[in-house]
Amino acid sequence: MTRQELIEQIKAKKSFLCVGLDTDITKIPEHLLGEEDPIFTFNKAIIEATEDLCVAYKPNIAFYESYGVKGWQALQKTWQALPQSCFSIADAKRGDIGNTSKMYAQAFFDQTLSGMSFDSITIAPYMGKDSVTPFLDFEGKWAIVLALTSNEGSKDFQNFTNTHGKQLFEEVLDKVNTWGTPDNLMYVVGATRGEAFSKIREHAPYHFLLVPGVGAQGGSLQEVCKYGMNKDCGLLVNSTRGIIYASKEKDFAEKARVEALKLQQEMEKELLKAEII
Amino acid sequence: MTRQELIEQIKAKKSFLCVGLDTDITKIPEHLLGEEDPIFTFNKAIIEATEDLCVAYKPNIAFYESYGVKGWQALQKTWQALPQSCFSIADAKRGDIGNTSKMYAQAFFDQTLSGMSFDSITIAPYMGKDSVTPFLDFEGKWAIVLALTSNEGSKDFQNFTNTHGKQLFEEVLDKVNTWGTPDNLMYVVGATRGEAFSKIREHAPYHFLLVPGVGAQGGSLQEVCKYGMNKDCGLLVNSTRGIIYASKEKDFAEKARVEALKLQQEMEKELLKAEII
Repeated sequence: MTRQELIEQIKAKKSFLCVGLDTDITKIPEHLLGEEDPIFTFNKAIIEATEDLCVAYKPNIAFYESYGVKGWQALQKTWQALPQSCFSIADAKRGDIGNTSKMYAQAFFDQTLSGMSFDSITIAPYMGKDSVTPFLDFEGKWAIVLALTSNEGSKDFQNFTNTHGKQLFEEVLDKVNTWGTPDNLMYVVGATRGEAFSKIREHAPYHFLLVPGVGAQGGSLQEVCKYGMNKDCGLLVNSTRGIIYASKEKDFAEKARVEALKLQQEMEKELLKAEII
Repeated sequence: MTRQELIEQIKAKKSFLCVGLDTDITKIPEHLLGEEDPIFTFNKAIIEATEDLCVAYKPNIAFYESYGVKGWQALQKTWQALPQSCFSIADAKRGDIGNTSKMYAQAFFDQTLSGMSFDSITIAPYMGKDSVTPFLDFEGKWAIVLALTSNEGSKDFQNFTNTHGKQLFEEVLDKVNTWGTPDNLMYVVGATRGEAFSKIREHAPYHFLLVPGVGAQGGSLQEVCKYGMNKDCGLLVNSTRGIIYASKEKDFAEKARVEALKLQQEMEKELLKAEII
């Protein structure tokens, strides 16, 4: 999906919601456990219940990988079930030396080899340029690079500051900016630090930002929009637990829809306020 | 495998060689391509030809993942074929927020869930403490954290320097040191920067270091040992391409053994010089 197509989806659906598919077999409704592939059955129901309310889906690869071969089968089937109208994100946090990153890119982008072709993948930047650029070499695909995350440990290294008062996450933004464009690069920026978005936007005014941490992790949608929205919206706000685990009963998909709808409606207000729709 | 058991293997085999299993279907001998699982068949032959000469094997997960479900089947079979006398490393460069890192740890450590139980996994530290500690919570398992790598892009962020002249990789060593012990933590340090090992040893005198970059990537074994060896050896030196792709013919396993033997003999000299054996 191109940047322009993504913006059109946001305007059409009046939403910049990304639904996280961190599907944990210990948290899904019990009645699904008898299914041949409970994880996929759960995902399919969640997707069907929410696809008109969100513009992206983000399977968290760890949750599939932890079940080995079976997990990869569930991931592949989930990828196949993702609708054309949604931007797909392999949340994998990969990154290695050049020839290895190329292999990771093939794993998530090259359907002929791996059976899957996501629109994008999340990347950890610690190993530098040759760990990121192989993902950008794939025409029409995106790299979503970790900049400032919302977890407890994010302060350990991301705020490491140089002699000019520049923090590591700023250096990451400035350098990675030179390796791609806002048409094939996004950044991960955690929602629990609303005010930090102004700093992010100084370095990356045009890029889309993938924002986890709204809801269960405590971030405020209003604050994220206040400091982080740009004229094309420029935000994909992720929610996982609040949506997919809204109920552990047979009505889990309906309840997921209710929660996704609440977020879509809040997002519609923000898009109107910013005169994007 | 415990630290003590690893040291005993190094002394018994007179080797601190790690063989990288970055098995690329486009580089293995053509006569294997007709096999049901060419990657596994190749790995099995390499393992049988080298297991008395090395103390560790390191499958590079990207090379398996790029073939999707089939690749994970090959990885699982490869893990099953690894000998008890060797330390096993899942070279995966994983790392995410706490609950996700726990899932990645299960993927590589918890055989009941994923079908595999490696001794260790490589970790990218960008997301900080809660991205690393879930791996350390697994009794008897190791986290091998990226400190200073040997690739071209390693200088982009790892040498970012604070007001006290401290570089990011030093901050990583100092902080990560407080999250584990030399009994469950190692660091990745690239061999192409021999002199850098003295700096690493100032911060991590006792830890084992996993050292890629000897051979194809241009690092010198002598220099690594001069600056990096400690009284327990403290080094696992990896070689991949020089060993596993020594020949593309039917004699690939014999030729791999010849190359592994050369390295083992050089390592024996270094161990003698340091009076470890």
